[in-house]
Amino acid sequence: MTEAERRVRPREQRYSLEELLHVVAQEFLRRGYDATSMEDLSRATGRTKSSIYHHVSGKEELLRLAVARALDALFAVLDEQDAQEGPAVERLEHVLRASVRVLAAELPYVTLLLRVRGNTEAERWAVQRRREFDRRLTALVRTAVDEGDLRDDLDPALVTRLVFGTVNSLVDWFRPGSGHGRQQVEDTLVAMVLEGLRA
Amino acid sequence: MTEAERRVRPREQRYSLEELLHVVAQEFLRRGYDATSMEDLSRATGRTKSSIYHHVSGKEELLRLAVARALDALFAVLDEQDAQEGPAVERLEHVLRASVRVLAAELPYVTLLLRVRGNTEAERWAVQRRREFDRRLTALVRTAVDEGDLRDDLDPALVTRLVFGTVNSLVDWFRPGSGHGRQQVEDTLVAMVLEGLRA
Repeated sequence: MTEAERRVRPREQRYSLEELLHVVAQEFLRRGYDATSMEDLSRATGRTKSSIYHHVSGKEELLRLAVARALDALFAVLDEQDAQEGPAVERLEHVLRASVRVLAAELPYVTLLLRVRGNTEAERWAVQRRREFDRRLTALVRTAVDEGDLRDDLDPALVTRLVFGTVNSLVDWFRPGSGHGRQQVEDTLVAMVLEGLRA
Repeated sequence: MTEAERRVRPREQRYSLEELLHVVAQEFLRRGYDATSMEDLSRATGRTKSSIYHHVSGKEELLRLAVARALDALFAVLDEQDAQEGPAVERLEHVLRASVRVLAAELPYVTLLLRVRGNTEAERWAVQRRREFDRRLTALVRTAVDEGDLRDDLDPALVTRLVFGTVNSLVDWFRPGSGHGRQQVEDTLVAMVLEGLRA
């Protein structure tokens, strides 16, 4: 055992795969996925590379696990009862609020998901699942228009992009536990998007 | 003159500083600023490093020039007559529309500006100017509330972040000349933010 290994060992033992992923996601965000090496991940997590390879095949699998965490949480929102039953406009409001909650709870993973551009197989898979999520949101907006609860003079696909663009923009500044609280952000966002800012 | 220099010379002669900046901004976006070397910039622009150093002191000055381009265009919006005169809610609408136009016209520079995190002096300077821009927007929203044209039950600073978060999110998907047109994006954004989506 080298001196470096001796130093990292105690920290290593505390890491579960979940804790590992959390640090890995932060590293990917800080350095960019392409620029991050397994060496960097080993240093940041305090684990030897072989102990990381014990769990995953490499950094692409780590990226896949990290973005899957965000995607699974977002898709789970669509399966919640309040997203399945009732008028589409109320289901949309529920999905909006729940998306803010997912973003707050899974901030590094959602941020990573939003930065993914599709250069590797894992990234292309994430981009495809994002598109599927967007399609389901657009369908929900379209249903709300058809039910007469949302204005019918706007394009549902464009409206969906703008609405969830607003949600996504939260990753740039929203930090749970400091500044504006999650409930206030959720309420203000829903008020702006559905009712508008005019007095 | 080496073989490499001979090959790049004809292309180099066509480049103005503006064209240089455009390619540099794309490189910074593609690789990340930290990961981009002067070597990379030399390769991407087809200029020798010494010819780049003839214009600027290094990659930090290139970053500064690139984000200054976005910042200057955005601050210029605030000085336009329609942003200076009339009810604040109309000035806000003008700033919103003009910001979308700046974003469309200066897409790589605005995208770069939004990614800047403040690790170098140029980045810290850009972050400070962004904050100053946000302060002026928040003041505009607050005035519109005081004039009775925007609802007074929402926090102006939070409203400003959400509204311009929506504008900023356009860099993720809006590509002038393909998909939804700029005018439609502008109109839909203003409709959503000011009037809301409810029928």
